[in-house]
Amino acid sequence: MPHIKLPEGLPGIRGPMAFSPETAKPLNELAEILLRDDNNSLSRGDRELIGTYVSALNDCFFCQNAHGGIAQHYLQCDINFIDQVKADFRSMPLSDKLKALLEIAGSVQKGGKYVTTEQVDAAKANGATDKEIHDTVLIAAAFCMFNRYVDGLATEAPRDRQIYVDRGPRRAAEGYLNFDLYK
Amino acid sequence: MPHIKLPEGLPGIRGPMAFSPETAKPLNELAEILLRDDNNSLSRGDRELIGTYVSALNDCFFCQNAHGGIAQHYLQCDINFIDQVKADFRSMPLSDKLKALLEIAGSVQKGGKYVTTEQVDAAKANGATDKEIHDTVLIAAAFCMFNRYVDGLATEAPRDRQIYVDRGPRRAAEGYLNFDLYK
Repeated sequence: MPHIKLPEGLPGIRGPMAFSPETAKPLNELAEILLRDDNNSLSRGDRELIGTYVSALNDCFFCQNAHGGIAQHYLQCDINFIDQVKADFRSMPLSDKLKALLEIAGSVQKGGKYVTTEQVDAAKANGATDKEIHDTVLIAAAFCMFNRYVDGLATEAPRDRQIYVDRGPRRAAEGYLNFDLYK
Repeated sequence: MPHIKLPEGLPGIRGPMAFSPETAKPLNELAEILLRDDNNSLSRGDRELIGTYVSALNDCFFCQNAHGGIAQHYLQCDINFIDQVKADFRSMPLSDKLKALLEIAGSVQKGGKYVTTEQVDAAKANGATDKEIHDTVLIAAAFCMFNRYVDGLATEAPRDRQIYVDRGPRRAAEGYLNFDLYK
């Protein structure tokens, strides 16, 4: 049961967002720019994968499945691929650049100071731009916020993971602005 | 030295915000609503203190001093009071409600699932409303993002703590929207 009285029938972050629409607005604007803006050399799929990976490290069931479903849709892969990235991305057929960015994201999840010069140098050596490194750090940091918001209020969410997979295409299409919290 | 090339002469979060104004916009809007909105039964000083405490737990020098300076101004206390709250808020002359909210914030810093029903019940027993608990969780979560953004990019900041104390009143007056990053 959630720690505070939230509007009913809304899974995960949607309950707190309905409870507090004035804070939901900048939160959704941040997600829209970070994860969907087209002026970005990281694909939407790769950005959602970074968020999914950080959410898995934070053990946030709702976020890792909601964003995993969106990443799966963009990357045209199956749920096993997403699960294997979460478990051991280094062994997966991802670009060296994305792997280097996931290393940085993993460090951010522990705390900002865990990001090392060696990790950043490796990302740059594999072609990552300053903007890509900036965005990776901020995506990882933002999911450390979203995950804590969702779990810190003890929100509820469906346990059937297929629901999130099925909703991925719709979530990808509607984006983070102006979506209907109740649909 | 910062991990990426940031505009020079801007301490802490100001460098990344100048580097990426499109993400700075929702970040500042979030801070403005969470920390300064007048439609809130938590004082601005108490909200800044929660952010300062979480920043200290995350060992973020810039954030704990920048927001500590603002909290000090609002609360009309000295820097020793802020330092003692960071070190051991339970022994300080704060309201039982604020202490209960700081307990929740401390758990959020570790991870959302660390917030216990007992902590929430204690906050409610001491008069905390659902909105105050919601805002405490989101303030703590947001500082877990801001702290990681600042330190994950290895930003630089003046080490002289008096600078932050001296700037507190101005920061409190200007707020988080429309301030000049370069002043």
